[in-house]
Amino acid sequence: METLDPRTAAQLAFLVEADKLKSIVRANPLVDGSRRENSAEHSWHIALMALVLAERSDEPVDLGRALGLCLVHDLVEIDAGDTPPWDEAGRATKAEREAAAADRLFALLPADQAATFRGWWDEFEAAETPEAKLAHAVDSLAPLIVNHAEGGQLWRDKGRTEADVRARNARLATWVPSLVPVVDALVDDAVAHGWFGEPEPDPEPDGEI
Amino acid sequence: METLDPRTAAQLAFLVEADKLKSIVRANPLVDGSRRENSAEHSWHIALMALVLAERSDEPVDLGRALGLCLVHDLVEIDAGDTPPWDEAGRATKAEREAAAADRLFALLPADQAATFRGWWDEFEAAETPEAKLAHAVDSLAPLIVNHAEGGQLWRDKGRTEADVRARNARLATWVPSLVPVVDALVDDAVAHGWFGEPEPDPEPDGEI
Repeated sequence: METLDPRTAAQLAFLVEADKLKSIVRANPLVDGSRRENSAEHSWHIALMALVLAERSDEPVDLGRALGLCLVHDLVEIDAGDTPPWDEAGRATKAEREAAAADRLFALLPADQAATFRGWWDEFEAAETPEAKLAHAVDSLAPLIVNHAEGGQLWRDKGRTEADVRARNARLATWVPSLVPVVDALVDDAVAHGWFGEPEPDPEPDGEI
Repeated sequence: METLDPRTAAQLAFLVEADKLKSIVRANPLVDGSRRENSAEHSWHIALMALVLAERSDEPVDLGRALGLCLVHDLVEIDAGDTPPWDEAGRATKAEREAAAADRLFALLPADQAATFRGWWDEFEAAETPEAKLAHAVDSLAPLIVNHAEGGQLWRDKGRTEADVRARNARLATWVPSLVPVVDALVDDAVAHGWFGEPEPDPEPDGEI
């Protein structure tokens, strides 16, 4: 559409490309178990979580930037796909694949916005600012909240143990410490319901008859 | 989970209930035409649009609140469903159904947050603040952007004409005037491609033989 100025045309091209995030399917289910969630609706859900839980941060949070980090944090999955925690081969190349995706996707925007959005994504990845720590906290909590509410089918299907899920949320203590009791309550409740997978049995001792 | 304090338990109950927005299907397609979008991923998309297009507002915008309005604006559809522009019977009761939904849903939050979130939804509906006008602008533009990028199948399926789509976006001129050229460019391009439905023919004049 040559009738649009280049800045607007670039912004629309980025927003149309971003639509593809609606087709990136994650491992986690909807709470009603009807299907797996995609990365666009997950990004909406964690932004809503950040809106509700921002008060738990022990540092002042710029809400606009925190929500911006939530909204852009998974865009790289348009090229790199979702890499669940149990995909060890995928995790070995995740950083490299996602950085290449960020190079391509944010460059669709006008140069000044490309730098700003890429900066937000880098800020999220570094997890050092109060806003990035809040975004990481809700991104880490979201799978626990939805899998717990759904009844833990994914945990049993994938053999995820209590220890796996606690380990996945261990860094909450450095991001938003006041949310650690949420992890404890949900994991304890899931244990009480028997919703986790079984730990792998210890290998049999050599030489025992 | 009696191990959680009442405030946290209420926040989690709201966030779990909000998950249902992922199952509210809208009329509009994904850009690739593979399926119709849901209201959760649509809410993410318009929040991203607000992030990119906030600079077009002719008034200063509090980005955190603008994004908050985008994130909560469709939550009422969990109870009230999506009501497309051509559903005349549905539109007659939309305001009443959505207000009842807002009464129920936001009351799941702790009282102070219930008031804040309900205030955001009321602010969005009133469309008077710079933040609400930006949120309305991107909510109005989003269907035009995705249907244009998809090739206008919905417009033809529903018999939506150029005049219908221009009328639907007419209020952009009062919300964010600098975005009106985007409507003109996309609609003109869709006309050039023959992507709209045909206008209803005038009824035949009475008495003509």
